[in-house]
Amino acid sequence: MDDDDMDHGHSAAVAWEAGKPLVIEEVEVAPPQKNEVRLKILFTSLCHTDVYFWEAKVTANSYLIHACGLHLIVESVGEGVTDLQPGDHVLPVFTGECKECPHCHSEESNMCDLLRINTDRGVMINDGQSRFSIKGKPIYHFVGTSTFSEYTVTHVGCVAKINPAAPLDKVCVLSCGISTGFGATVNVAKPKKGQTVAIFGLGAVGLAAAEGARVSGASRIIGVDLNPSRFNEAKKFGVTEFVNPKDYDKPVQQVIAEMTNGGVDRSVECTGSVQAMISAFECVHDGWGVAVLVGVPNKDDAFKTHPMNLLNERTLKGTFFGNYKPRSDLPSVVEKYMNKEMELEKFITHAVPFSEINKAFDLMLSGESIRCIIRMDG
Amino acid sequence: MDDDDMDHGHSAAVAWEAGKPLVIEEVEVAPPQKNEVRLKILFTSLCHTDVYFWEAKVTANSYLIHACGLHLIVESVGEGVTDLQPGDHVLPVFTGECKECPHCHSEESNMCDLLRINTDRGVMINDGQSRFSIKGKPIYHFVGTSTFSEYTVTHVGCVAKINPAAPLDKVCVLSCGISTGFGATVNVAKPKKGQTVAIFGLGAVGLAAAEGARVSGASRIIGVDLNPSRFNEAKKFGVTEFVNPKDYDKPVQQVIAEMTNGGVDRSVECTGSVQAMISAFECVHDGWGVAVLVGVPNKDDAFKTHPMNLLNERTLKGTFFGNYKPRSDLPSVVEKYMNKEMELEKFITHAVPFSEINKAFDLMLSGESIRCIIRMDG
Repeated sequence: MDDDDMDHGHSAAVAWEAGKPLVIEEVEVAPPQKNEVRLKILFTSLCHTDVYFWEAKVTANSYLIHACGLHLIVESVGEGVTDLQPGDHVLPVFTGECKECPHCHSEESNMCDLLRINTDRGVMINDGQSRFSIKGKPIYHFVGTSTFSEYTVTHVGCVAKINPAAPLDKVCVLSCGISTGFGATVNVAKPKKGQTVAIFGLGAVGLAAAEGARVSGASRIIGVDLNPSRFNEAKKFGVTEFVNPKDYDKPVQQVIAEMTNGGVDRSVECTGSVQAMISAFECVHDGWGVAVLVGVPNKDDAFKTHPMNLLNERTLKGTFFGNYKPRSDLPSVVEKYMNKEMELEKFITHAVPFSEINKAFDLMLSGESIRCIIRMDG
Repeated sequence: MDDDDMDHGHSAAVAWEAGKPLVIEEVEVAPPQKNEVRLKILFTSLCHTDVYFWEAKVTANSYLIHACGLHLIVESVGEGVTDLQPGDHVLPVFTGECKECPHCHSEESNMCDLLRINTDRGVMINDGQSRFSIKGKPIYHFVGTSTFSEYTVTHVGCVAKINPAAPLDKVCVLSCGISTGFGATVNVAKPKKGQTVAIFGLGAVGLAAAEGARVSGASRIIGVDLNPSRFNEAKKFGVTEFVNPKDYDKPVQQVIAEMTNGGVDRSVECTGSVQAMISAFECVHDGWGVAVLVGVPNKDDAFKTHPMNLLNERTLKGTFFGNYKPRSDLPSVVEKYMNKEMELEKFITHAVPFSEINKAFDLMLSGESIRCIIRMDG
């Protein structure tokens, strides 16, 4: 396909108004500029971040094309792009890796200075413009991926080249929440074989964190959720016990400490509730317990605990995208799936054609789906 | 010396009343029972914990013999003690290592279930009795060491056997705050060569934390203290820059972030002020920063921060006695001094004979001394 072809319309799901169904429109997708790639999208998905911004942040002057959990093939590359070529299979990610900043040079961080998630930008870094338009009017990007579209343009730093043998309709879920939860456990909490792990929140991210604990050989995986209906499903992800804080008249951290002779070895918080964060921290064992925070809190939240909980040799860490560097690390996560070390099928509960993308929103809002794949050819 | 000799009086400094000068008395020191050792004390010292309890906690029915920073020689051992014999050089520690509990089995913890610091017990675990008495009236132990005495009895789990060639009047300071601060940096914060480190509080523990940063090859060591008089002294411990929070009308974490392009790589909090703890956490760089809390907070303090500070991949850890296991790890700290990897002389600013023990309290209260050695033969 050459650039002239691309200037003809291609389908994209546009969020015109906050909380209103997306509308499939014909959009023009401009060619990639310096350090950019244009991608053909085969499968995409959505996550709570999409829903959150769709509900709260779409404003009259900022129409978004959403983004998250997807699989693409490189269609064309812009100037300066040397490590990707047309036909490569890739996963684009909502955060990037420039490979040049202090964060990219650090072994510990994945919070790239240049390409760290930015929910406000809406345009390409190179020229401050969008690559999407309808009759000359710009349609803005969202978190640098914008995959509810047959074609998208992203910065090369937001694209991980993966094994072309990987099944596109499965590994697409690794772009987002599944890697976030899995990485939170295996890269940050790092439970040792035989240790106990508590997972707060049994949504997709929490179930992926449980999968990380299962893969790590945890002896007990305690799932904590206010919604008991998740427990049966959670067993497939290794969860061995279920605690509903509503069932007790004492703090859930105390319930867990009593179940585990003083506390779990590791905990992973995947709800974003600050109270759950505090419980997740206070439920780990003194001496060696590690609590990992994944969920995104509200702007005004305060994490509050007695400092003795820290002095008694507990560790509190936060993580972003499971501490994975998108380009350097995601290919090896795909290999984990290919080697059958981790399972992805069980995360994918639904699939819809692109024309029914709003159904994917409904499935997520109702809590029915863990991940719903959106087939772009559908 | 046989037990009959010991039953005759030996000098000990007894705290009869809170905040009042200690009184040198003749005490009887009973023989060691099962898993206990009786030690002849050559050098001791004191730290703020002693002063704190001396000021606040000595009550009419609990006369304490204080404890901290000391060097002793084993005089006799009780039943079941196989790894120590009379004549061994040892460092007793205010916390212990039973080698059998989950904490002692954990590579990460030093918070022994059996012998963890207990400021209330005052008696031996074996029989719930004190080994000190004056005319049959018990004088209580303090934190299991009680070294302001020519002889003391401790649990064998609170005693580290060290290199007999180590100079007794130097390595005695490793029993307490110096190991606490040094270990907080080298065992917990673990700065890499060339990284930046902030130290909150330039007392003995903070200076030891700075020494740990210096030994680790930190490129910049920023000392933070409300008392500027400490800065000159702190240079000897590797501190390169000094920040007095009183000199700024913005939070000290912001001052440090501006000095270091976004934050220091590591921080170590050695004051116990909850506000300093929060600043120490918030002044580390996102992506990889690690903050370590050492100082003991007040009972009612709350550590409070916005959870995004954690989600941006900062780590918050607490430590107790520098994460050293007393028996397993202290001998190697003594070797670090013997190999000239760490310096101890600069911590020892004063020395007094036992008869002038109250002068050591005055020197600490006035802030004049870092460590004052008390010579038991003086």
